[in-house]
Amino acid sequence: MADETVLLHKRRKRQLSPKAVIPLSTPLKQVHITALSYTGEQFEEREISKVEECFALRNEGTVTWITVKGVHDVEIIEQIGKCFEMHPLLIEDIIHAEQRPKVDYFEKSIFLVVKMLSLGKNEVVNSEQISLVVGPNFVVSFEEHEDDTFKYVRERIKKGRFAKRGADYVMYAIIDAIVDNYFVILEKLGERIEQLEEEVVQNPSLKIIQSIYNFKTQMIFLRRCVWPLREVINSLSRTESRLIKKTTHFYLRDVYDHTVQVIETVETYRDMIAGMLEIYLSSMSNRMNEIMKVLTIMGTIFIPLTFITGLYGMNFKYMPELSSPYGYFAVLGVMAAVAVFMLFYFRRKKWI
Amino acid sequence: MADETVLLHKRRKRQLSPKAVIPLSTPLKQVHITALSYTGEQFEEREISKVEECFALRNEGTVTWITVKGVHDVEIIEQIGKCFEMHPLLIEDIIHAEQRPKVDYFEKSIFLVVKMLSLGKNEVVNSEQISLVVGPNFVVSFEEHEDDTFKYVRERIKKGRFAKRGADYVMYAIIDAIVDNYFVILEKLGERIEQLEEEVVQNPSLKIIQSIYNFKTQMIFLRRCVWPLREVINSLSRTESRLIKKTTHFYLRDVYDHTVQVIETVETYRDMIAGMLEIYLSSMSNRMNEIMKVLTIMGTIFIPLTFITGLYGMNFKYMPELSSPYGYFAVLGVMAAVAVFMLFYFRRKKWI
Amino acid sequence: MADETVLLHKRRKRQLSPKAVIPLSTPLKQVHITALSYTGEQFEEREISKVEECFALRNEGTVTWITVKGVHDVEIIEQIGKCFEMHPLLIEDIIHAEQRPKVDYFEKSIFLVVKMLSLGKNEVVNSEQISLVVGPNFVVSFEEHEDDTFKYVRERIKKGRFAKRGADYVMYAIIDAIVDNYFVILEKLGERIEQLEEEVVQNPSLKIIQSIYNFKTQMIFLRRCVWPLREVINSLSRTESRLIKKTTHFYLRDVYDHTVQVIETVETYRDMIAGMLEIYLSSMSNRMNEIMKVLTIMGTIFIPLTFITGLYGMNFKYMPELSSPYGYFAVLGVMAAVAVFMLFYFRRKKWI
Amino acid sequence: MADETVLLHKRRKRQLSPKAVIPLSTPLKQVHITALSYTGEQFEEREISKVEECFALRNEGTVTWITVKGVHDVEIIEQIGKCFEMHPLLIEDIIHAEQRPKVDYFEKSIFLVVKMLSLGKNEVVNSEQISLVVGPNFVVSFEEHEDDTFKYVRERIKKGRFAKRGADYVMYAIIDAIVDNYFVILEKLGERIEQLEEEVVQNPSLKIIQSIYNFKTQMIFLRRCVWPLREVINSLSRTESRLIKKTTHFYLRDVYDHTVQVIETVETYRDMIAGMLEIYLSSMSNRMNEIMKVLTIMGTIFIPLTFITGLYGMNFKYMPELSSPYGYFAVLGVMAAVAVFMLFYFRRKKWI
Amino acid sequence: MADETVLLHKRRKRQLSPKAVIPLSTPLKQVHITALSYTGEQFEEREISKVEECFALRNEGTVTWITVKGVHDVEIIEQIGKCFEMHPLLIEDIIHAEQRPKVDYFEKSIFLVVKMLSLGKNEVVNSEQISLVVGPNFVVSFEEHEDDTFKYVRERIKKGRFAKRGADYVMYAIIDAIVDNYFVILEKLGERIEQLEEEVVQNPSLKIIQSIYNFKTQMIFLRRCVWPLREVINSLSRTESRLIKKTTHFYLRDVYDHTVQVIETVETYRDMIAGMLEIYLSSMSNRMNEIMKVLTIMGTIFIPLTFITGLYGMNFKYMPELSSPYGYFAVLGVMAAVAVFMLFYFRRKKWI
Repeated sequence: MADETVLLHKRRKRQLSPKAVIPLSTPLKQVHITALSYTGEQFEEREISKVEECFALRNEGTVTWITVKGVHDVEIIEQIGKCFEMHPLLIEDIIHAEQRPKVDYFEKSIFLVVKMLSLGKNEVVNSEQISLVVGPNFVVSFEEHEDDTFKYVRERIKKGRFAKRGADYVMYAIIDAIVDNYFVILEKLGERIEQLEEEVVQNPSLKIIQSIYNFKTQMIFLRRCVWPLREVINSLSRTESRLIKKTTHFYLRDVYDHTVQVIETVETYRDMIAGMLEIYLSSMSNRMNEIMKVLTIMGTIFIPLTFITGLYGMNFKYMPELSSPYGYFAVLGVMAAVAVFMLFYFRRKKWI
Repeated sequence: MADETVLLHKRRKRQLSPKAVIPLSTPLKQVHITALSYTGEQFEEREISKVEECFALRNEGTVTWITVKGVHDVEIIEQIGKCFEMHPLLIEDIIHAEQRPKVDYFEKSIFLVVKMLSLGKNEVVNSEQISLVVGPNFVVSFEEHEDDTFKYVRERIKKGRFAKRGADYVMYAIIDAIVDNYFVILEKLGERIEQLEEEVVQNPSLKIIQSIYNFKTQMIFLRRCVWPLREVINSLSRTESRLIKKTTHFYLRDVYDHTVQVIETVETYRDMIAGMLEIYLSSMSNRMNEIMKVLTIMGTIFIPLTFITGLYGMNFKYMPELSSPYGYFAVLGVMAAVAVFMLFYFRRKKWI
Repeated sequence: MADETVLLHKRRKRQLSPKAVIPLSTPLKQVHITALSYTGEQFEEREISKVEECFALRNEGTVTWITVKGVHDVEIIEQIGKCFEMHPLLIEDIIHAEQRPKVDYFEKSIFLVVKMLSLGKNEVVNSEQISLVVGPNFVVSFEEHEDDTFKYVRERIKKGRFAKRGADYVMYAIIDAIVDNYFVILEKLGERIEQLEEEVVQNPSLKIIQSIYNFKTQMIFLRRCVWPLREVINSLSRTESRLIKKTTHFYLRDVYDHTVQVIETVETYRDMIAGMLEIYLSSMSNRMNEIMKVLTIMGTIFIPLTFITGLYGMNFKYMPELSSPYGYFAVLGVMAAVAVFMLFYFRRKKWI
Repeated sequence: MADETVLLHKRRKRQLSPKAVIPLSTPLKQVHITALSYTGEQFEEREISKVEECFALRNEGTVTWITVKGVHDVEIIEQIGKCFEMHPLLIEDIIHAEQRPKVDYFEKSIFLVVKMLSLGKNEVVNSEQISLVVGPNFVVSFEEHEDDTFKYVRERIKKGRFAKRGADYVMYAIIDAIVDNYFVILEKLGERIEQLEEEVVQNPSLKIIQSIYNFKTQMIFLRRCVWPLREVINSLSRTESRLIKKTTHFYLRDVYDHTVQVIETVETYRDMIAGMLEIYLSSMSNRMNEIMKVLTIMGTIFIPLTFITGLYGMNFKYMPELSSPYGYFAVLGVMAAVAVFMLFYFRRKKWI
Repeated sequence: MADETVLLHKRRKRQLSPKAVIPLSTPLKQVHITALSYTGEQFEEREISKVEECFALRNEGTVTWITVKGVHDVEIIEQIGKCFEMHPLLIEDIIHAEQRPKVDYFEKSIFLVVKMLSLGKNEVVNSEQISLVVGPNFVVSFEEHEDDTFKYVRERIKKGRFAKRGADYVMYAIIDAIVDNYFVILEKLGERIEQLEEEVVQNPSLKIIQSIYNFKTQMIFLRRCVWPLREVINSLSRTESRLIKKTTHFYLRDVYDHTVQVIETVETYRDMIAGMLEIYLSSMSNRMNEIMKVLTIMGTIFIPLTFITGLYGMNFKYMPELSSPYGYFAVLGVMAAVAVFMLFYFRRKKWI
């Protein structure tokens, strides 16, 4: 099996989305496993140091949520995989965290891959892969980082809110927390987009075009995360797997509605960004027009005047106008007339 | 339940559509409940001060339409919800009014979310969420604001027009009033678009581009309201729920046709707006062309003339032309010839 | 019923497509009803002055085609509606002639709305609503205007061509005449588009852009008429309603093919129009380029020359060149050299 | 029937695709009919002068392929139609050769319309309609022109290659020959497109834009021919008509794959053409930029210099610089410095 | 059969994708055949010199993978085809290597065409056709070139990793290797695209546009390879053919996910390329704006100044200013004031 894994390892490395940082380079040194069990309003939380302890948990009467943080210690993950009878390809999917959101149904478990998003600097959206294995009375969640992403879900369990609910409801709560987080990110992006919208009108520059382009890329990334997630949740909310109860279907349907809302917001942002580009181009051509107008007005007024001055700057011996005592003032008058005519002409053309 | 609600509360806050004003900030201080019951041509209308009164209404022989105005008093809404056996998630949907139009079928009731639109200043389309619970002999409608949106429906009931019709027909009448209102809004927007269309040809400016862009955004918003509404009505008009009678299906089919017309009008407006943008850009590049032409004509006529004047403005001692008595007039003649030639050339190029 | 109608009346007024003229404002003062009955090669045509006469016609052994011209006398239309057992909503659809093409199947009749098109001045496409009620042995057609739109169909009946055919074939003949008319309109538009195509290359102007934009709008309008019509005919040609005979299905299939051809032609025109816009913009930027070239060539040749003349127009006391007897001619030579070099440079750049 | 035909005649005339030449105007004066029968490796080919001879052929034990060249002699085509029990509308479809590719299944025959393409001058694609009637042991093909389009198929029959194959295989061979011909045309167009691609980069002109636009139109035309053809072949390869044998299905599937390849090539060409337009516009704006740069560099260098010369060309009595013996040289130096500074500035801006 | 083949031969020659090099021109002189058989952890590899040896291999108890390199020796390929009972059209598909990826199911075998990609110079993607025939215990793979494309798969077999797996798993391993290779190519292209992205901002030139356009073409090519491949794998992973085991379906599903990822990456690249074009055009118009600004600023400052110098360069006898002792300095002052005002005006306009 080890050799097989290495092969697959090699393969996955190549599945790079553009600019993706390969998590393999900055792995969590150690794998942390915690188990949270509850029945009714009772709960028990403990650190797990040896993977073997999981075997016991699996068959207890309680609902158990095992959280595995750090997915890069291949051996441990494989041990956990064996404990929960997972297919080697699934273990691969967990370890090499560049999967699309997906769901696989098995007789005794459901395997889920979803994406937790976070917002880095420069409005770059990063994603973390959350893999879930859902059994009749257990949920195993694999996370890449140390952060307590699902703190709020855990607290609700500890408060006894999940009393009679099973593992499927824990799964719902986790997905729900993830989708909620999408709204947080969209809201932040939305604020920045509105800022950009004002800037693009008031002070268009190439920098803004790059910002707009960056947002566009982020939106494409978001879409790629949300569309398959929507399919996953849709599938879960309609599945006939007996691991998911009828009552939970209704809750999943609700999360599904939220993902649709996320998608719509993403699409709206895309439209807004496209609109900004149009405004940018329009205001650019507007500016060009204005610049050209100034040049043309200045040019066309002074060019004939300068010609006239040149005319009387010529050194011909016989130029009758030059000796006339009123010649200078007559020429000044002509020039004033030309300028006024020009201004009048531009006014009529609505250039000034 | 309270804690659960708070959680959900927190969540919904995040479901912001861009620029959406969260109604939670300006809630209707008090919840107003009125009930309108009718049988045959009889009807009774009364204010309800205690939610418990609803329990009684539910089981009477009449058809009852309970109107709840103001959805932000969580406790009262929850009480009403319990009275009509609604799922906690539905109560959430009512309270947090940023849902997409949707329909949920239950054994004893149908739950609907639709959007009432209104036109604010600057052609900004605002939406109000109308939630409907339709049972065998009752309709509960939840509105966010105080306005008597469905005054006309109410009047028709009072006139006895609904005589033998059931709760499903009341639902139809409400939806019909909402879709009718869409036409009113579209008509107003349409008038403004036609104005813009004339302006864009006669006096293109950056302001118009912003107006066009704003309209585009409004159209996207309208689409987002109407497309799911269409699905909702389509679903209602085909549902096998026994809560909706066969005869009502035909009426719903009619409203469905109207939503299709709304969608087509929205799409037509979108096309018109896109066309305006093209006209704007064309007329911009046209203007630029004209400006450039003026500059070029002036420039190319006077540049050689000015050169000639410069030539004879030079102070060389030995310039034979200068001492010729006809030099000046010969030069004037040459310059006139150059100018005429240039004008002729431009005429041939169709620049003037 | 009257009140109901008024309500609906009010509603329909709002269903304005952009720029649509509401027919209600210029109604046909009177409703004209004619009936054309035939069996075998016999036929009888008569004016109907009282609606009640229709009752009799309905149950005769002949196939009867009742033509109602003018749909704005609500009362008469309602009477006819009652005679043929039509749903009030259908009567509405007839009276308020802004419906999309559609078909409704009932047990005893089929209700159709289709659009007759005509070409007004400035290539504006106008539409007239034709509503059809098709029963086992009768067709009622409602037209808005007085024109004898279906003269040719009528003539064929009078010549005995429809001998053994039923009411469904009359319906087919009417639809066929309408679709044929679409081709006439498309042909006319096509000729004008080809004209435009030449103009846009030879003499691009803002006027042409407006023409192009107008055509685009007409094409959108045509699409909105033809796409639903296609669905209507497709539905008719596959319906299992026993009102339409198997043999007629084949004829309907043929009209269906024609509507597909209409759609393809419309799409081709749209593509041609889009292409024209591109050519317009290209030729615009081409012209700009040419204008700029002329200015640049003139400018860059004469600017250095003018500088030289200025140089020797300075009044410094000590300028050795000025007193040289060959100075003037040397300078003329230098200027000629500069000009030649410039021309050579532009030639190499392929500007001249 | 005659009158019916005339009516339809009138109708079809209108089904003009843009710029289509109506074949009715240049009909083949006479209809040529030939029949090719084969069994095993035997074959017989003969000219048919009287349509009645076809009746006999139909019921022989051989497979017979009747080729009808020239479809504009209505009477003869109608006679043939009667012989093979064809519906009057099908006869219409044969005579008026502006049909879309289509297939109609009947109990005793299959009726096909496909398009043979040829390439006229200026890369204009022309189409000829080939109508096929396929029966249990006969194929009738109707062609518009005299050319021996299917010479190769005929030769293979004569060589005995079709030995045990039936009429359905003859049909396949004809369709296959047509689709093969599409590749020939695409190849020729492809070569010309590659030429254009080079020209657009090296020597962009308005002429090229018109060529590009022409290609675009041809591609739209090709699409309109191939898409429905694909549907036709798909339908044939899946039909349950007992006129087409299982073994032939596989061959049709193969032609289907070829049509998909044709479509993909057409789409690729469309993309290439769109790309060319973009390159054209980019290189246009590039050229404009270059032109502007030259003008700007020349202008901004000489404008200040010319100003300086003007300054010392003024005739004020008291200008101290003028009488300085080094004034002239100092000014020359200043002007050189200005010019060098300007050049340096443009270099930094990467304009030169 | 031979004649048939020639016909088909002729046909395929025409199926040129744009710029495709016909492999027929540079065929592998000789066909190399090798056979790799394994059972459990045993394996045997041998060169096959006579095609007849294949017959024996087919019926052994082992799983055998026959690799045929060089597909242009028609006779040998036909012999192999006969040995494995392949349809003549399939043999054609193998020989003429311009097929789209496809799958055909037969009772005793599955026939697959897939595309191996490689990256030539100038980022041109080349493709090689790999044809597979998969039977119950054998796989025949036909490759165009000599390279050991599937070396890694072969090594894994030799190490005994495929022990109990059948021919279907060998097929999976081959497809998997191909799809993995797509990621390698995408990664390389991705790096180049990122480079381009930087260049387009820093140093936009027509060359870059051509590079962008080239990438676009490559992306279109990739799409054309991957989309049908996706369909092929999807079909394989759902087929009910008993030649593919249930357990292999899961592996195929995994490759399917990878092709979806490939498609998404291709689409992302397309979006990035489109974005680059926009940035290019924006930065072009930006540059134009800047150039125009410089010209306009220089022009509008100096044009009036030059006019003034011209004014006092005139040779009129009576010009009072000229004799004033402060005239020169006053004029200098006026000119400075004009220049300062201009600069101030441009500053306010944010041009400098």
